[in-house]
Amino acid sequence: MNTRRIAIFGATGSIGVNTLDVIEQLGGRDAFEITALTGNANVDALARKAIDHGAKMAVTADETRYAALKEALSGSPVMPAAGESGLSEAAQMNNDMVMAAIVGTAGLKPTLEAARAGADIALANKECLVSAGPLFMDAIAAGGGKMIPVDSEHSAVFQVFEENQRRALERVIITASGGPFRTKSLEEMRHVDAATARAHPNWSMGLKISIDSASMFNKALEMIEAMHLFTLRPDQVEVIVHPQSIIHSMVGYADGSVLAQLGTPDMRTAIGYALAYPGRPALSVERLDFAKLSRLDFEAPDETRFPALRLARVAMDRGRLQGAVLNGAKEVALEAFIAGRCGFLEMADITEKVMDDLSHLPAANGIDDIFAADREARRQAAALVTG
Amino acid sequence: MNTRRIAIFGATGSIGVNTLDVIEQLGGRDAFEITALTGNANVDALARKAIDHGAKMAVTADETRYAALKEALSGSPVMPAAGESGLSEAAQMNNDMVMAAIVGTAGLKPTLEAARAGADIALANKECLVSAGPLFMDAIAAGGGKMIPVDSEHSAVFQVFEENQRRALERVIITASGGPFRTKSLEEMRHVDAATARAHPNWSMGLKISIDSASMFNKALEMIEAMHLFTLRPDQVEVIVHPQSIIHSMVGYADGSVLAQLGTPDMRTAIGYALAYPGRPALSVERLDFAKLSRLDFEAPDETRFPALRLARVAMDRGRLQGAVLNGAKEVALEAFIAGRCGFLEMADITEKVMDDLSHLPAANGIDDIFAADREARRQAAALVTG
Repeated sequence: MNTRRIAIFGATGSIGVNTLDVIEQLGGRDAFEITALTGNANVDALARKAIDHGAKMAVTADETRYAALKEALSGSPVMPAAGESGLSEAAQMNNDMVMAAIVGTAGLKPTLEAARAGADIALANKECLVSAGPLFMDAIAAGGGKMIPVDSEHSAVFQVFEENQRRALERVIITASGGPFRTKSLEEMRHVDAATARAHPNWSMGLKISIDSASMFNKALEMIEAMHLFTLRPDQVEVIVHPQSIIHSMVGYADGSVLAQLGTPDMRTAIGYALAYPGRPALSVERLDFAKLSRLDFEAPDETRFPALRLARVAMDRGRLQGAVLNGAKEVALEAFIAGRCGFLEMADITEKVMDDLSHLPAANGIDDIFAADREARRQAAALVTG
Repeated sequence: MNTRRIAIFGATGSIGVNTLDVIEQLGGRDAFEITALTGNANVDALARKAIDHGAKMAVTADETRYAALKEALSGSPVMPAAGESGLSEAAQMNNDMVMAAIVGTAGLKPTLEAARAGADIALANKECLVSAGPLFMDAIAAGGGKMIPVDSEHSAVFQVFEENQRRALERVIITASGGPFRTKSLEEMRHVDAATARAHPNWSMGLKISIDSASMFNKALEMIEAMHLFTLRPDQVEVIVHPQSIIHSMVGYADGSVLAQLGTPDMRTAIGYALAYPGRPALSVERLDFAKLSRLDFEAPDETRFPALRLARVAMDRGRLQGAVLNGAKEVALEAFIAGRCGFLEMADITEKVMDDLSHLPAANGIDDIFAADREARRQAAALVTG
């Protein structure tokens, strides 16, 4: 097996950490040569990982931390770099694959660059598809690499998506745990706070993503992503609430068959699949025991209590820059909710108002249009929060 | 699309009838040229189907019905034929595909002949793999055709079996409805009769197969089939009870992923998959609605109440002619149960005794060894029933 050159964008976050664990399971330096690790504020952790895993370069996205990173790397052969130019350099290191796990719009530019440079993209960043779907798919096509999703839902779809049977494709069914408020009433949801919202039943996650999961904005983003990633019509993207999160997602075909990928909630399966694609690696993750599981439940999603799902359909139907607008407005509303400055259900109200106000924006011609729409959406959302 | 030449062995049974329905859905004579339909006693139904679907030949396996078949076909261009020579002729008609749906050991010879002649085999007959697995797999390899299973469980496995990832294959998980006695106690099962045993919760089936489902002998046969069909070790074949029969079966891989095929209990999906393979056809079968399904249950199979499952493991571990012996002995015990001459649980006792007594038989060198083992197993089982 040849070693593959890989850069990990977002190496200190949970996807990054799990990616490094999977790389060790797949043979470590015998299987992968790490060209670059990137991180943000936590330069000590970044430096330690870069040294431990023999990375050629470590990049902090935060230019003000360059000196600290350089200090932490002193005496090691790892090259320090910082800021946009550093990320750009990491994207151009003749990578066979890039794990794109930088959170937020900050991940857009370096991931697009890596895709255009021809690397396979293991995609964990949501904004690449939600905000810049067509641009990103074009970049992948231009670079000639593959895109393999790392999100458990999209990885599941990818694993049972028969590309050569596309004419027989009817629908993609994304499963949703329903989050901590699955059984709460609309009235109860009006009054929940961030501390209540962060308790996810199945997956251990950061604060923002936990709340996105509670509001199902997370699922809304995944719907939009699925549409771009698998070139679907909006009506081909379905969501089903499945509290146990064992079926990670499904694909329905014209012969009545539904194919599904199942697993324990361990992101290393999807990461390993992306890293070893088109192979299927051996991983030390827990195996499913169906007798122990005992049952899997399903229920229709409720778009009244979870308006984010309805907004995803609006964004998918409208197309153009509505994905970027939804995401930007939602980010501001989410931060306002965490700070106690808006209610749980108001996050969707704010997002919807901004989407409506910016529904005239045309399709993006380039990345700058995405950033402009994102900024304008955030500005309007912020005005609505304080207004 | 070129028309494909197809023969349907067992055209008047439920698989045969559904196959003809699927052929119509796939384009009828524009897609398939029916070389031969075969049946048994019901020559009028056979003749009518042969005429309606433009078959070149109709074959009754029962030589004594040749005259009746000829009479029923008079005035039509369909050629009548009968008996073993007729079936052999049907197997040699330069078929692209043969639907092998003759029930029982009677299906062995013509299916083997068709496989050796190079036809793709859509396999619905169980004995080809249970009794003659290695011979049958060799015949397929010699003919150069493909084998595509039609049983819903094996079709499910086939659909999510990644042949090029065989090293990552861990297990095949066959689902079992558990039948009408899933929740009955051992004591209750001792006293059930054939009328109670025939009521299957999910699939509408014939008497014998319904009782095989109630005793889970049906599942035992499927375990042995799966081992041969997918070249598995015995310990790689698992069974899980899943009362709703929505997940038709699953495959577990070394990365923790389990892939599954799901659908409504409609055999036309598996038939359509086999007929259109490697395509995936559009079929008018009911689509799954997960919100309506609401839940899927799983429980470990109980080998005390369903000893057939344990016997399958014995047969798989011993190999050689034990599959043929299990099947032959079970057939006699089943008929005795239907006739009220042995108890429900005694079917397994009889089968096990015969398997033990004939465990010295070597591997089959040819089809005649299979028939000899089958006859001897039946003779011994009959002696145990009357004894």
